[in-house]
Formats: sequence, structure tokens, C-alpha cells
Amino acid sequence: MAGNSFGNIFKLTTFGESHGEAIGGIIDGCPAGLSLDLEAIQKEMTRRKPGQSAIVTQRKEEDEVKFLSGIFEGTTTGTPIGFIIENTDQKSKDYSHIKETYRPSHADLTYDKKYGIRDFRGGGRSSARETACRVVAGAIAKQLLKDIRITAYVSGVGELMLEKHYSKLDFKTIENNPVRCADPEMADMMEALIRNIRKQGDTVGGVVSCVIENVPVGLGEPVFDKLHAQLGKAMLSINAVKGFEFGSGFKGTRLRGSEHNDLFNEDGSTKTNNSGGVQGGISNGQDIYFNVAFKPVATLMQKQQTINKDGQTIEMQGKGRHDPCVVPRAVPIVEAMAALVLADFWLLNKLSKL
Amino acid sequence: MAGNSFGNIFKLTTFGESHGEAIGGIIDGCPAGLSLDLEAIQKEMTRRKPGQSAIVTQRKEEDEVKFLSGIFEGTTTGTPIGFIIENTDQKSKDYSHIKETYRPSHADLTYDKKYGIRDFRGGGRSSARETACRVVAGAIAKQLLKDIRITAYVSGVGELMLEKHYSKLDFKTIENNPVRCADPEMADMMEALIRNIRKQGDTVGGVVSCVIENVPVGLGEPVFDKLHAQLGKAMLSINAVKGFEFGSGFKGTRLRGSEHNDLFNEDGSTKTNNSGGVQGGISNGQDIYFNVAFKPVATLMQKQQTINKDGQTIEMQGKGRHDPCVVPRAVPIVEAMAALVLADFWLLNKLSKL
Amino acid sequence: MAGNSFGNIFKLTTFGESHGEAIGGIIDGCPAGLSLDLEAIQKEMTRRKPGQSAIVTQRKEEDEVKFLSGIFEGTTTGTPIGFIIENTDQKSKDYSHIKETYRPSHADLTYDKKYGIRDFRGGGRSSARETACRVVAGAIAKQLLKDIRITAYVSGVGELMLEKHYSKLDFKTIENNPVRCADPEMADMMEALIRNIRKQGDTVGGVVSCVIENVPVGLGEPVFDKLHAQLGKAMLSINAVKGFEFGSGFKGTRLRGSEHNDLFNEDGSTKTNNSGGVQGGISNGQDIYFNVAFKPVATLMQKQQTINKDGQTIEMQGKGRHDPCVVPRAVPIVEAMAALVLADFWLLNKLSKL
Amino acid sequence: MAGNSFGNIFKLTTFGESHGEAIGGIIDGCPAGLSLDLEAIQKEMTRRKPGQSAIVTQRKEEDEVKFLSGIFEGTTTGTPIGFIIENTDQKSKDYSHIKETYRPSHADLTYDKKYGIRDFRGGGRSSARETACRVVAGAIAKQLLKDIRITAYVSGVGELMLEKHYSKLDFKTIENNPVRCADPEMADMMEALIRNIRKQGDTVGGVVSCVIENVPVGLGEPVFDKLHAQLGKAMLSINAVKGFEFGSGFKGTRLRGSEHNDLFNEDGSTKTNNSGGVQGGISNGQDIYFNVAFKPVATLMQKQQTINKDGQTIEMQGKGRHDPCVVPRAVPIVEAMAALVLADFWLLNKLSKL
Repeated sequence: MAGNSFGNIFKLTTFGESHGEAIGGIIDGCPAGLSLDLEAIQKEMTRRKPGQSAIVTQRKEEDEVKFLSGIFEGTTTGTPIGFIIENTDQKSKDYSHIKETYRPSHADLTYDKKYGIRDFRGGGRSSARETACRVVAGAIAKQLLKDIRITAYVSGVGELMLEKHYSKLDFKTIENNPVRCADPEMADMMEALIRNIRKQGDTVGGVVSCVIENVPVGLGEPVFDKLHAQLGKAMLSINAVKGFEFGSGFKGTRLRGSEHNDLFNEDGSTKTNNSGGVQGGISNGQDIYFNVAFKPVATLMQKQQTINKDGQTIEMQGKGRHDPCVVPRAVPIVEAMAALVLADFWLLNKLSKL
Repeated sequence: MAGNSFGNIFKLTTFGESHGEAIGGIIDGCPAGLSLDLEAIQKEMTRRKPGQSAIVTQRKEEDEVKFLSGIFEGTTTGTPIGFIIENTDQKSKDYSHIKETYRPSHADLTYDKKYGIRDFRGGGRSSARETACRVVAGAIAKQLLKDIRITAYVSGVGELMLEKHYSKLDFKTIENNPVRCADPEMADMMEALIRNIRKQGDTVGGVVSCVIENVPVGLGEPVFDKLHAQLGKAMLSINAVKGFEFGSGFKGTRLRGSEHNDLFNEDGSTKTNNSGGVQGGISNGQDIYFNVAFKPVATLMQKQQTINKDGQTIEMQGKGRHDPCVVPRAVPIVEAMAALVLADFWLLNKLSKL
Repeated sequence: MAGNSFGNIFKLTTFGESHGEAIGGIIDGCPAGLSLDLEAIQKEMTRRKPGQSAIVTQRKEEDEVKFLSGIFEGTTTGTPIGFIIENTDQKSKDYSHIKETYRPSHADLTYDKKYGIRDFRGGGRSSARETACRVVAGAIAKQLLKDIRITAYVSGVGELMLEKHYSKLDFKTIENNPVRCADPEMADMMEALIRNIRKQGDTVGGVVSCVIENVPVGLGEPVFDKLHAQLGKAMLSINAVKGFEFGSGFKGTRLRGSEHNDLFNEDGSTKTNNSGGVQGGISNGQDIYFNVAFKPVATLMQKQQTINKDGQTIEMQGKGRHDPCVVPRAVPIVEAMAALVLADFWLLNKLSKL
Repeated sequence: MAGNSFGNIFKLTTFGESHGEAIGGIIDGCPAGLSLDLEAIQKEMTRRKPGQSAIVTQRKEEDEVKFLSGIFEGTTTGTPIGFIIENTDQKSKDYSHIKETYRPSHADLTYDKKYGIRDFRGGGRSSARETACRVVAGAIAKQLLKDIRITAYVSGVGELMLEKHYSKLDFKTIENNPVRCADPEMADMMEALIRNIRKQGDTVGGVVSCVIENVPVGLGEPVFDKLHAQLGKAMLSINAVKGFEFGSGFKGTRLRGSEHNDLFNEDGSTKTNNSGGVQGGISNGQDIYFNVAFKPVATLMQKQQTINKDGQTIEMQGKGRHDPCVVPRAVPIVEAMAALVLADFWLLNKLSKL
């Protein structure tokens, strides 16, 4: 209700502020009997963590997840999985300069007005640090989903757009470059662009694409909890996201029905996939694919005018350690949220028919 | 859980198939003491109903909503509002030809596989007829929201895109043309395009834009139930929707932070509004605006190849009465879903602080 | 949230006032493929309906349930099951005398204060008429549960208490007497008592006992949604209920652990069943049994002092047609609520382990 | 869904096993701006903790709660409150003897069958240790409820029943005796009984009564989430609880309506309070009072026959440190659960009318 839970059956509830002692969460509804690969979970954390390359924030967090319950001798027990991640690099003084300040295009003003109080240290709850908990839960969801393969990659940084169809890309290259672009040549250009923008103390937006292969037919709960609607909500709930489209997306609006319809093969698969793997809110067994738009990071290493709590104009400049572009680190978060949605619907779908 | 409810506090649950006796719903959580304008509700129904103009489906439904509870002497009582809308124009035989057939880019196959049974008459539950119930609930939500003004309009039909900023449009013109475009000249072109496409037995997609004015600060429940995340889910749950973007949207991904940041005025309002009225998942008091992408209708009045339940290739052609383009009738649905989201968050926000 | 839904997966939402046009509900989450025996549903309705015998209210309602969706050719489709029951015997004028009056031990004052408005006709939403919808849903739940046998019966009317263990009773006799007591001799005495009390214009309380046989191990979701906790809530949500105990109940508090513990047989069954079929909130395969306490009906056919809205003392006397004792008609309601709880947990339990 | 959350708005989710590293929880939905008295919270923990007197278990736990989020400079921020309580006295080896054993009247068999795996150390999740988290959340709820006074006390131990009406008791004496009985004389007898039973290696059940004073009119959400129904569920979800009754309870079933009805005073209060402060599921402003039945603890310091996983009969005897009677330590848990229910409904009730 108060917005810190996600999912129906496989349900994640998170807590924690950027600069508190720890963040963490509870996963309720993970079935018993799942033998967990804890290293694989930590590996996902490492993909998201700060300081992993020269083009991301240099905040130093080990992001080591500590499980407190729900796992016995390496296997889930069906009881809630509680976990925490310590904030080892809390430097609260970094933020004293914004105590009274509303930073432009941050959540400072809205949190303050909504709650009447604000933990100003590093954005508090509104910081993207919170997404670390999503990655933990998503990593477990991935293991539950076994053969379903979820792959996200960067397809846009600023004006650089990777237009190639995903079937033409080699997903194995994604982790070979710090941008997490699935095309090495484009990756180089994107990296150069980000480095350049960082030098200017500026930031840039981008697009993350995601492909989900090997999806069983039947996932999604119409009419409100359609598969793509829940995926959309999941993605839009990630910090800095401005848009979501799946299948033919916005471009599909320009087509005629005779162009857009996906004709069937005799086995029930389709010759084209403008539907993006979803029909009527339910997976149809084809690949699911979608794009997620991220705005440029709001914290600049440039001077900006803004206001303080009293409505006075002041000048400020970002301090601390920030990402010039979030999309490289957003890739595992997009995958995690997709995994949470699919795990939830995969469980729910077991109850669809007798 | 099974997907037919929307909202937390102001909660709509719907039922009904396209060709059953009636569809309907229950609104639970509408506060007592709201004096309802029943005519205004019916007026919204009329904006959505079939047969309203030459460019929409000619199915004949009065779409008269009948309230069964929760209203006493014109005022809400705080108890659940039950309502039904009769299906007066059920022509089940129209659909006998698709009993064994999976229509391309419809939900026939996915429903059949998920549930093991399918009410094939007119798409059954997957028909957009279900959205009539959303319009009822949305119309009540609008009355609850009083001064918050929600305006949707058609901004794209096929390749015709209305690029003007919404502040340049005269919203009063929207209901003056059958397309519900907010620009009369563009409206004429769009209408001509739709008529032309209909003649070919084809269909076309489009875009609905929505602007919400006079929004109080504080709506939205991060970190998962962010205002724009819930708006996105609401829109994506509407039949035929393929994408959602708010504020700067996908275009915003190409900007630099120094271009994208919305600087504050001294009263806390912002000089620009790339944020689309939402910061950190909470309304900031600026206008909320977003775009919703609709695919072309899948039912064509042309011959198409498809398969039947046994996987045999057959040829089919749409019969009955279908929309060549859904966006004109989608306008009130977009508004209704936006109203549901806002009403829910408006109520929840009363509990944010002591 | 606003309290008119029950269940997690198999979820009932109801609407309707005693004297509106109709009451009804939506069952969301019933799996597809359940072939429904509609006569059996109607039969449950008949067990609850007014006018069925000389010792219950003489209000005349056919209580014919009309299904509007979710069933196709006699089988559930997995989509929400919408239904209505018309109020054919609405006599609103019967209640004009209480328009301004708060009846003692009714919900008149509390509804008025909570909502600021009251549908005074027959108690409005607070009337037990609402339980008809529970019986519809419970009857469907019963069919879903197949071999699980739920049997309720009257075990107390006023000072008359049936102390025999349920294994000594012949459940086949329950429907042979208007009291629905499982012991013919006691049934006669109870009937005589109720007739006598009715003559005096008075009312009396009673106890309904319920036994659930053939329950699989594993139902219930600790730590909060324990099987008996949800059963307790279900029963306490029925009008006029004042208490719930299961297994050894209140008497069990007086025993020593060495007397109370249920020792195991080698097959995992237990030699005694003080646990009432539930251990740690999860069914253990033994019979579940519990008692539900009902207070005497508040509407008397005697003069009583009370107050009106302005706080003035007035004298009133019940008019209309009321039950002198609710327990005979409560029997099918208790069964229905038990069925709803079990169906919900039976579905959820499919997700407990891989 | 998976049963580890309680509440709608003020929502507690817990995790943790008896012998894991820590237990903990998340409170989501506590409004911002509540200035917390952390000492008062810890004091509630101390009332529940083991080792507090000679008649309770001697397990040594400091039960120090550590808040990780949601509180800034002593005040709630509206973001989720995460907390943990370390298990400092984990002695896992104490339990190796029950690894393969199903203890009578414990949840060993049911957890094992439901989940296919069991954390056998100290009952794992089914241990009452979990209730420590409820006390944390309840203590915060109490502070939110301010003037509403919730008082629980022991009214029964075995055959010793305190029959005095609560208005005749001096609640200040409750914490003066280790039994937490509100009558000093009875307290002495109860303590003697418990000591005697402990010597025999046996255990005994009991009753906790609870009185809630100064309750505003309007709490409760009919028709399913009636105030007393949710209170009943809350109590029944506590380990070892077998029954719940409020107001006149089971005894009320024997009364006539003319005896049971609570006549009004002119100010809307009632001359009697058989209703127990609730009418139609909504608080009426009178005192709420109820009784909760607890069974005797299942772990005996005597030899008992039981079975192991393979269905072989074996003999066992409780080791470790167990309570001979749970009711003294259950008192703060009953209060905590009552506080959770009231806080939730107190918040929800703000939305009942415009």
C-alpha cells in the first residue's frame, strides 16, 4: 500500500536509505526447495555496484548481500527470505550542502512536501541505491525461472542508437565493455561519448533494451495485470525511467493492421513478432522484448541555479561521486525487475486452470 | 491477484465478457459523501460507446450504466458501488466462424492455452468491451478529484503526428471532431486517413496524449508505486497499448542533464517541465503529461491466413463491426484510467504524514 | 482495503444493500475448467433463504442467483465470475420509522458516524442479507474442494447445548429439522425454545459447530495467515458472531500439556485431536473442527427505549420480519465461509514448494 | 500472500527463524512525523523477552531492536522502517536430537509436509521467537495511537480463572507480578500453580484478556474486515492461541435479546456493553474487550512417545529452555497485535468520508 512492495506471490518488500546503516528487503513467497547459487546472486550485485569501471560513480560499496533467513543449508525453505546490504561507504558530510536545498530534477522537494521531513543524506530513500535490493531478489527470481533467459543491454546513449534487431546481436559481448552495449563498435562510441560528457561535468540519458527468451505460454493476468502492463510498471519504477515500449512500440502506431498482424505458423508460433511475445496481456511463447528510456542523471558537476527550502535562489554544484550516465549500471536492474515480474506470473499461472 | 482489480484504496474490480448478458464492476473504497452527477458519468460512457460516429465500430450498445448499490439519494455511502451494463447487442452467431480459429494478433491462442477453455464470442473477456466498466469508475474518480483536470486527445494516427506542444492547443476543440484530435486541421487529415484505411478493409494505430492540470504536490507512493509507474501500468492495461512515456519520454534520453534539468522558480514551480510533473515518483505540482501508443486493430476486413485449434492453416476475414482505428474511442478510457490512478493516490496521500 | 473483499487467490468481493435493487459479487481467481453444478449452488441458497420454516424470518426472497460472466457452457473460464441476486421483497416503507433512530445493538449509529450517511432501509449494508453472496461463492468453493467435506450444524440455542462429540452425531439428520441441529432429540427441544421465545417477542443466541473432513496436509500460510486465524476471521466477519474457538478451544486452556498433546500414530495421524486439525497454522490432515458463537438478534418485537439522531430518548418496537434466532440460517453461511478459506489456501498451497 | 505480512496501510512484514542469525521486519505505511520514544519500544521488548522471571524460559536473549531505516533524527520519515533483532543465544546443537523427529503438537510435521524441508533448529519459523518482531511494530503502533489505551493481562491459568469484571481491577498491578495477572491475590495462586507444574516437567494453558479504552467511533471496515474479525485474526495468529471472544462472547449466546441489547444513553454511549465496543464491525466508542485462549505449551520436560520422519515410534523428552506457561509473556504480544489492528483501521478510517 505504501509502495515498498512489488509482486503478488513472489513478493519483494524493501527498506533503506542511501546513507543509513544498511538497506535490505524481504522476499515472501519464494517456493521451498530452490537450491540457491549464492555466487550467482553476488555476481549480479557486482554488475550493479558502483566503482566497477571508469564511466560509473566511484562510490565504494562492496554490496555484499547477507541473508538472514529463509535459506537452510543452501535451499529455500518457503519462509520469508530476509537480507541486508550494509552501506559501508556512507559519507554523510558529502551532503550537508544540500540539507536546505532542493536540487533540480531530484526528489528533494517532492519528498519534503509529501512527508514533511526529508533524510537529505544522498537522496535518502529516493536514491537509486535502493535498487541493490531489487537485484538481490531478481537474482533469486532468475534462478527460479531456470530456462527462461533474460538479457538486457544498452541500446542507446544520448543520440547514439543501436538500431540493429536483437537477433543480429551477440549477447556474449555485453559484459565485455563497460557500457554493456551488445555491439562492440557501438560500445566504443558510446563509451567515448560518456567519457567526453563526464569531462564537461555533464550527464546523458540512454535506452536499455531487454529480450526474454524461452518464455512459456500463459504468463500474465488480464485484464489489469497484463504481462506487459506489469513489466511496464516494473521498469517505470526504476529511478530515472521516462518510458517503456514493447514489441513494435511507438513505431507500431504508424503501421497498418495488415502490416502489423503476426501471422501464425502451424505450430502456433508466429512469422513476425510485432506483438513482442504478448497477446491480450498473456505471453504467447515468442520472445518478449522491450525498451526502457532513462533520462540524463540530474546531478551535474557544473554550477546550476536552484532554490532552498525558503524559496531563495542559490547556486549549487554536485559534489560526491555520481554516474555521468546510468544505463550501464541499469542493465542488471532491468533484468532483475523483469525476473521479478516473470517469477510472480509463472507462479500465479500454476493456478489458472484445474 | 487474478488480475481483475485495479487500485489500492479506490479499487475497481470488473467482470464480464463481450457477449455475455452484462458486464459490470464494483468500486470499493470511494469515500462517503460524494454527491454524484450521474449524467456526467453517462456522458463519459457516450464518449466511449460504439456507433458514435462514422469512423468507429457500428455495434449498437446503449451502454447505460445501472448502479445497484453504494449510492443513496444521489450520494455515495462509503459502501461498495456495484454496477452493471447490459450487453444489448449480443450477436453471438457473428462469431461462430472463429470458434475453432486463432485470429492473428488477438488473444485467442493465449487465452485458450492459459485457461484451457475460451469464450470465443467476440473475444470474450479479452474484448475491449471490458473498458466500459473502467469508464464508469473513472467518471466517479473524476468527480472525486474535483479541480484536477484530466484531458486526453488524439495526437497521432498512423504517420500523422501532432507535434505541437499541448499548451498551444485548444482543448475545447477535442470533442468537435470524431477523431478527438485537439487540432482541427490535423483532425480533418486524420479523419480522412481513417476513412481511407477503412475502405481498404485495413486498420491503423495511433497515439493518445494526456495532460493533467492542477495536480497537488505529493501524489505517488515510491519506491514501487511511483505515480508514473502506476500511470504506465494503467495505460498499458488498456487493450492494444504498446508503449507509454511521460514528460520528456524517449526523446529525453538524447538530452544532456544540463538541458534536461528543470530549474526551479522561487515558488517551487519549475521553468521547464521535462519531468512531466513527477519527481521521484511523486507529483510536483506541475502539469503531468504523457503519451500512449496504440497498435492497429487486429481485426481486418481483408482476407488473412491463420490457423485453427488443430494447427491447420485456414483463411479468414473479419466479420461484424470493428473499429478501423481505436484511438478516438480510447480517449475517454485513457482519461478514466488516469483518474483511477490519481484518485487512489490522492486518498493514499492523506495518510503520508501525521 | 475498504473491507468488501475476502481471500487472496480465490477472492470474493461483494456489494449491495438489504433494500437496494440487487446484491451481488465477483469471484476472481476461480481456476478455469471447473464444471459447475448450478443446482447445488441454488440449493445452498435455499438453505440460507428467509421463509424456509416457521422459526425464521418470513421475508420473501427467492434468492435466485444470476451469473453474468466467467462461466461458459457450464464450466468456469478463469475469468471473473460476476453474479447478482435481486431483492424482490424490498419493502422500504417498513423502515421509515427507523430513519432517524439508532436501534440498540445494531450498526445504525456506527455506520452513521463512520460514513456521515446511512442507508437506513433494513440496515442497508450492515444487514445479514449480504451473506447471500457469501453462500454463492462458498458453494462454488465447495465444488472446487471436491472431496473435502464441510459440515456445520447447530450445537447450541440459548442454554441448550449439544455436548456430544461430533463423531457420535449423524450428520444426515441435520437437514431434517428446521433448527439444523445434528441430534434429533435436542433439535426438538431447541425448536420448542425458539418458538417460545418468538412468542414473547424476544430472541436468543446460539452456537454453530463445524467439522471439516478429508483435509489434505499443508493448508494455511503462517505466520499471519494461519489456517485457523483466517477461519476465525471468516467466522467473526459473519453478522452477530461474538466468538470462535477451534480444537480444544477455551476448555483446552485448563489442561496440562501432558493431557493436551496429540501423540502420533506411526502413519503421522494423531491418537487424539485437541489440535483441531491444525498445527502451527497448517492443516495436519486430521479433522478440523470449531465453534462459532452467535449473539441473540438485536431486533425485538418488544418495546425498547432508544435514541434518535438528535440524542433524544424514544420508544421503539421492531416491525417487519425478523429471525428470533439466527443459527439455523447461519449454518450454510458458516460452511460457505469455511469453504472460501479452504479453497483459497488449497490454491495457495500449490505454490509452497517446487 | 505467503502469509508473512499483516495489515493494510500500517503493514508489518516479518522474517526470521528461531536460530538464524537474526529476525526482523519492515513496517511500511507508518506516517511521517511520528516522534518515536525508542526506550518505550525497548521496554515492550523487555516485557516479552525470555529470562525475565523464574516462571518463563531461561533462554538468554537481549532482544535489542536495531532500526536500519525509516527514522531520521528520532522521527519517522514515511519511508519503510526496517529493523533486526539478533539471535544472540542460538544454541543449534540443542536441537540436533529433533532433526529427524516430529514433536507432538508442534509444527514439525506440518512444515515438513508443506514445504518439503524443515529448519529443525528450535522450531525454525514456527517458533514464537517470531513474535518479537510483532512487539516492535506494535510498540510503534501504540505511539501512533496516542490516547488509545491498550491493556492486556492474564485472566486464566489452567483451572484458575479471574472472573472479576475488568472495571474492578487495578491495571497498575499487572506488571508487579511475574504472571501479569491484574489481581494480586489471584496472581500469587497462578504463580504457585505454574511453579508446581514446572516441577512436574509439565505445562499449562491460560487466558489473556485485553481492554482497549478511549477508542474513537468508526474503526473497522465491514463487511469482511470488521474490527473484531481482524482483532480475532490477529490474536489467532499468535502461537498457541485456540480461541477468541469479544464482548459477551460465548456466554452471550445463552442470553435473550432483551437481556443482551445495549441500550443507549442520550449521548450515544450505552448503558451496558455486551457489544464489547463494536457494532456492525465498527468501534462505537465504548471499551473494546476480548479474551484469548492459549493452549498448554507442547514441549514437556517429561518423556513422551512420538515418531520420526520414517514413521518409527521413538521416545523423546524436551531439552533446552521452555516456558511452562506462555500467558505471562503473551501479554505484550496481545497488546502489540491489538495495536497493529487499531493503527491500521485508525489510518483507514481517515478515508471513510469526504
